Amino acid sequence: MHSPDELKALVEEALEQLDLWPELHGQATSVRYALEVGGKRVRPVIALAVGEALGAPVEQVMPAALSIELVHTFSLVHDDLPAMDNDEERRGHPSTWKKFGEGVAVLAGDALLAEAVRLAARYESSAVARELAEATLGMIGGQYLDTAVEGYDLAAVHRLKTGRLFYASVTLALWAADLPVEEQAPWRAFADELGLLFQIVDDILDADGYVREHGAEGARRYADKAAERARGRLAELAVDTSVLRDIVDGLAVRTV
Amino acid sequence: MHSPDELKALVEEALEQLDLWPELHGQATSVRYALEVGGKRVRPVIALAVGEALGAPVEQVMPAALSIELVHTFSLVHDDLPAMDNDEERRGHPSTWKKFGEGVAVLAGDALLAEAVRLAARYESSAVARELAEATLGMIGGQYLDTAVEGYDLAAVHRLKTGRLFYASVTLALWAADLPVEEQAPWRAFADELGLLFQIVDDILDADGYVREHGAEGARRYADKAAERARGRLAELAVDTSVLRDIVDGLAVRTV
Repeated sequence: MHSPDELKALVEEALEQLDLWPELHGQATSVRYALEVGGKRVRPVIALAVGEALGAPVEQVMPAALSIELVHTFSLVHDDLPAMDNDEERRGHPSTWKKFGEGVAVLAGDALLAEAVRLAARYESSAVARELAEATLGMIGGQYLDTAVEGYDLAAVHRLKTGRLFYASVTLALWAADLPVEEQAPWRAFADELGLLFQIVDDILDADGYVREHGAEGARRYADKAAERARGRLAELAVDTSVLRDIVDGLAVRTV
Repeated sequence: MHSPDELKALVEEALEQLDLWPELHGQATSVRYALEVGGKRVRPVIALAVGEALGAPVEQVMPAALSIELVHTFSLVHDDLPAMDNDEERRGHPSTWKKFGEGVAVLAGDALLAEAVRLAARYESSAVARELAEATLGMIGGQYLDTAVEGYDLAAVHRLKTGRLFYASVTLALWAADLPVEEQAPWRAFADELGLLFQIVDDILDADGYVREHGAEGARRYADKAAERARGRLAELAVDTSVLRDIVDGLAVRTV
């Protein structure tokens, strides 16, 4: 089994070597740019760790893991657009629209989503692609509630906007690792807690959401409880989940 | 076997009854609006006609057929954006961004693509979703060449931007109808001619592309030859392709 850092290195390598569809022509440049601006790659790392816990080799789960990262990247590219959050920077670099123009950035996001589907559809069964599409729709619904609806329940917004892809990081890996659907329930319960944990810690770092509702200490308690429940879910699984436990511990105390 | 008009009515009915993913929340309104503004539904009609020629019932091919129509609609919603073609109208109605704002329109296009994938992933095999993703990427590449690159070979642009989804209307139906890959080649040759035919007639109606390169009469000759080759490809198939022949005849002489 690989450590989270080793898994991250494997993800970076696979992203660098990712073949984009040749018919994209020059549009591929902006897609690569958006992917190379980087990030923690935490979603694909979770997917690979779930796969390894289930005995699936990294190569087997990598397409599913990358598909989640591409959907995440697509959402950032479109969220940064002037018509959405109007962010000119992303991780210290010009955002995709700032670098390539709005039209190309719209297409870059579209292409990232389509490439994600192509990755998910590398598996013989359509289950990975279906689960990816559902998570993407949930994320889009969250983005809608966040930007177009005043005063919608913030916890519900974040559960969709942020939590949904975390949940999918686990569940896509279940299909990619060929875990039968009747054995997936305890893993899906873990996926729920993981998404919630990430989202509460996000709120703590951004001082919004849970912090606004429950104060800084209250939010911290919620995060600790979510981490505890996530560890509890892992402990119930009859496989070696030590790497996933390290990831949960890391998510609970992360500062970026 | 159903006539093209009957197939179109079935497509309209299926689109009306289409269940959108509940997590979309209010975002679903703009998605429905974009779908209801209508159109000729020629792509899904082709898909269903291919399916019927292969002996597959309409219900079996409908998800694949609708997935193509959703990708087509997604491309229109994003193409109309101010950052792209800046069209305020679409088929006599306000375009999606004009009606709901730019941010919601970006998300509506994203959601249409994700819903298309969910439809394509209703099949057990991932082949439909994979073929859909490849066609979408080709279409995006064509849109890029059309808007961001000056003076790129117009025929190549149109082959991607318009022809790619026509090609997919045929090829998705092949998978949906369970036609083994080793029997698909003659159908794919037909799909090529069909995409080309639609695109040349498009140029004739818009007086660009082929018309600019070969004059009005020259373009008409190219269209007639493409239609002839498409009919020839159909004649080679050992099934009843009379409805598809009607569709080819209609596409060759269409005036809208």
